[in-house]
Amino acid sequence: MQFTFTKELLAELRDWIADGKDTAIIAAITDAHEADLAELIHELRRDEAVYFYKLLDDERAAAVLLELDEDVRELILSSLTSREIAEDLIENFDSDDAADVISELPEQKQEEVIALLGDEEQASDIIDLLTYKEGTAGALMGTEMVKVNQNWTVSQAIREMRKQAEDIDNIYTIYVVDDQDVLLGTLSVKTMIFTSSSMRTMVKELFKQTKVRTVHVNTPADEVAKVMEKYDLVVLPVVNDQNILQGRITIDDVVDIIKEEADKDYQMASGISEDVESSDSIIALTRARLPWLLIGMGGGMISANIIGVFDISQQPQMAIFMPLIAAMGGNVGVQSAALVVKALANQSALDETLFQKLWKELRVGLINGLVCSTIILLVSLLFHMDLALCITAGIALFFVIIFASFFGTWIPMTLNRFKIDPALATGPFVTTLNDIFGLIIYFTIGHYVIQRIGEVTWAFVG
Amino acid sequence: MQFTFTKELLAELRDWIADGKDTAIIAAITDAHEADLAELIHELRRDEAVYFYKLLDDERAAAVLLELDEDVRELILSSLTSREIAEDLIENFDSDDAADVISELPEQKQEEVIALLGDEEQASDIIDLLTYKEGTAGALMGTEMVKVNQNWTVSQAIREMRKQAEDIDNIYTIYVVDDQDVLLGTLSVKTMIFTSSSMRTMVKELFKQTKVRTVHVNTPADEVAKVMEKYDLVVLPVVNDQNILQGRITIDDVVDIIKEEADKDYQMASGISEDVESSDSIIALTRARLPWLLIGMGGGMISANIIGVFDISQQPQMAIFMPLIAAMGGNVGVQSAALVVKALANQSALDETLFQKLWKELRVGLINGLVCSTIILLVSLLFHMDLALCITAGIALFFVIIFASFFGTWIPMTLNRFKIDPALATGPFVTTLNDIFGLIIYFTIGHYVIQRIGEVTWAFVG
Repeated sequence: MQFTFTKELLAELRDWIADGKDTAIIAAITDAHEADLAELIHELRRDEAVYFYKLLDDERAAAVLLELDEDVRELILSSLTSREIAEDLIENFDSDDAADVISELPEQKQEEVIALLGDEEQASDIIDLLTYKEGTAGALMGTEMVKVNQNWTVSQAIREMRKQAEDIDNIYTIYVVDDQDVLLGTLSVKTMIFTSSSMRTMVKELFKQTKVRTVHVNTPADEVAKVMEKYDLVVLPVVNDQNILQGRITIDDVVDIIKEEADKDYQMASGISEDVESSDSIIALTRARLPWLLIGMGGGMISANIIGVFDISQQPQMAIFMPLIAAMGGNVGVQSAALVVKALANQSALDETLFQKLWKELRVGLINGLVCSTIILLVSLLFHMDLALCITAGIALFFVIIFASFFGTWIPMTLNRFKIDPALATGPFVTTLNDIFGLIIYFTIGHYVIQRIGEVTWAFVG
Repeated sequence: MQFTFTKELLAELRDWIADGKDTAIIAAITDAHEADLAELIHELRRDEAVYFYKLLDDERAAAVLLELDEDVRELILSSLTSREIAEDLIENFDSDDAADVISELPEQKQEEVIALLGDEEQASDIIDLLTYKEGTAGALMGTEMVKVNQNWTVSQAIREMRKQAEDIDNIYTIYVVDDQDVLLGTLSVKTMIFTSSSMRTMVKELFKQTKVRTVHVNTPADEVAKVMEKYDLVVLPVVNDQNILQGRITIDDVVDIIKEEADKDYQMASGISEDVESSDSIIALTRARLPWLLIGMGGGMISANIIGVFDISQQPQMAIFMPLIAAMGGNVGVQSAALVVKALANQSALDETLFQKLWKELRVGLINGLVCSTIILLVSLLFHMDLALCITAGIALFFVIIFASFFGTWIPMTLNRFKIDPALATGPFVTTLNDIFGLIIYFTIGHYVIQRIGEVTWAFVG
């Protein structure tokens, strides 16, 4: 029932593009949604993509453009003249999308496009929006909304709304303002339209007196997302210092931010720089992954050095529990760091302090450490391993788990304090550090235990 | 301007609860949003939470209940009689929320509550909703919506809408149906209200003829989320086999699912079972973390065995690169698995096949492997390490990286094929397996190289 692309259709489309069979292409995509068309364009070669894109009618071309990945959008935009961008695309956009697209153009083209815009009000809105810093509520908001003055009558308001609604796809909320455009409250479409009061009622008698939840134009985008998510908002008004209504942010823009934030943390934890997908080029994938591997390599070399310093050839049996110690340090550290990152993402005033978190981690670490140490001690004794080695493994594992819990909590909290993304601490970075410290703890304890209990001898039954 | 809780206020509230100063409590929270109240309740002890909750008026109590974590909601519900739940809470809910809350009650209480519902239509809607399996569109949808018949006139439709809209907070879309309730299309409130045509125009002349995007009642929730996200929908109609309109899903319910899905993957990758937060109890945190640590322990013991089998005491210097090899296998595997999990989450018909993905991973692995192997070879030679050991490390690292790339891609794809959550493969699980295989590769290559080049002698300058 709903349109979906298949690999067969993709192959067919590519043939038609090669042969210039425009009518066949247009017929095949009549029912396709812009998100589907964007997905398709991402599968095409650059020249095919441009060819295909130019076959779309203006309204669809505009909608598809917003769905494209940034690099493909750049390719398409560079194939269009300033006049085409201004007249065919921008006029079909909401102000927030228009500003986003224009901000991606080279500076000279930006000015050309703005100069060519037919609608002066749109042009001035866009110029205003371009002044907001990327990643703020101002840069995220659109200016299309329905706004009524509290001193209007209902019939006056409905007349004005009819005018304003021409540019708007969906009326979420009606904003009530005073003569200075200061936001006073909201009205639902339902109240306004289905009010049983007379058409001569004043708007001020209808609207809710409860405080409206707003954000400031400079509020960071991730905080906007948090507010909309927490309070289940579909639309959120944006105001300036004087509480004057500047625009509104809709949930669809914020869903993308919520998704991106979560994906970014996930990728960081997995040792991948932001913004790659498995469908990206091999070069892009390598670029996103290699730096983290090099961190791991650096850590591995430091570990090699430590093993050298402790002279493993004197106690080769110590090697047996090295992988276990390293793995446990890494695992515990990543767990602790991930919990902190998640807590920081959902921060509230009632949160635990660093000290409270560390104290809690210490207790969790104590339990995990005791359980794991006891198991390793019992299992290794069961396998008739050397007593000194069993004791070393047990004690070392206990301290490694506690240390890694602490370290995994402390690093992201500290990064966050210095305004560095705490998610950095969840991936190979914290694992590598915990590997190193884990080895040091293991060898130090081994050194001490062996001095007391005597030479470790090879007794492991492989 | 907006209400926020502070630790001071929390402390004050707890004192008031202890002293039974109800008026002070009620005064302090007049302006608080239900999401804030829920956050507050989560900070209280169980008895305090129940006391506090009972001070809320019905409408707020209902709204707060929906914001609570499941265990706290259960506590509150168990403190209320069936009559209180039916009359004070359920009647204030939308049908989807009502069904969710009722489904959490013990079976007998479910029946009592439904029997006590005053509104028969609501009761029958709820009974219908309860039949849908959890995690499907049917269980997610609400039945409150504005629905007009195509054969009505605009004035008839507006009259009906006024009636229907009484139960509805926000009108997102007007659904146009035929006499059998088959969904035919949608109308925006704007078109309906601000239409310039006469009040005697038929609805069928107004509504969009394009296909409406719908989901089936049995569509899984995560697919619903994907559709709404991809197509930027605020509301999505749900139909049955006959395309008869059954309900609608709103974006606020789906934002939570999108967030949960992403969080779940993140936690899995970090070795934490779903659904804990750092503010949870120590027992809950330990329960979520310990199983993964035990997996790591098991892996560590297998590694210990392998080291025993290869008899490290004969070649103790081999220990030097063990941490590096293990860490790299783990890191590469996690990267590959994370990319697959992300790709599976955004699956489309145009996706690469398993074979294509493996082939691509092979090439990425080749580049990463070559770079890392060359570095390790050069650095170890620079440090005047034994030639056989240098060569072993270089060759082994190359193969470990390629193997881990393959393995990290293959495991989640395979889990997914057997309908097991592929995110399982991104955490300690894949790291542990790669640790083990990495060691086997390293020792096997070491064995072979040393046979050819001769005994590895201790020559590392620590």
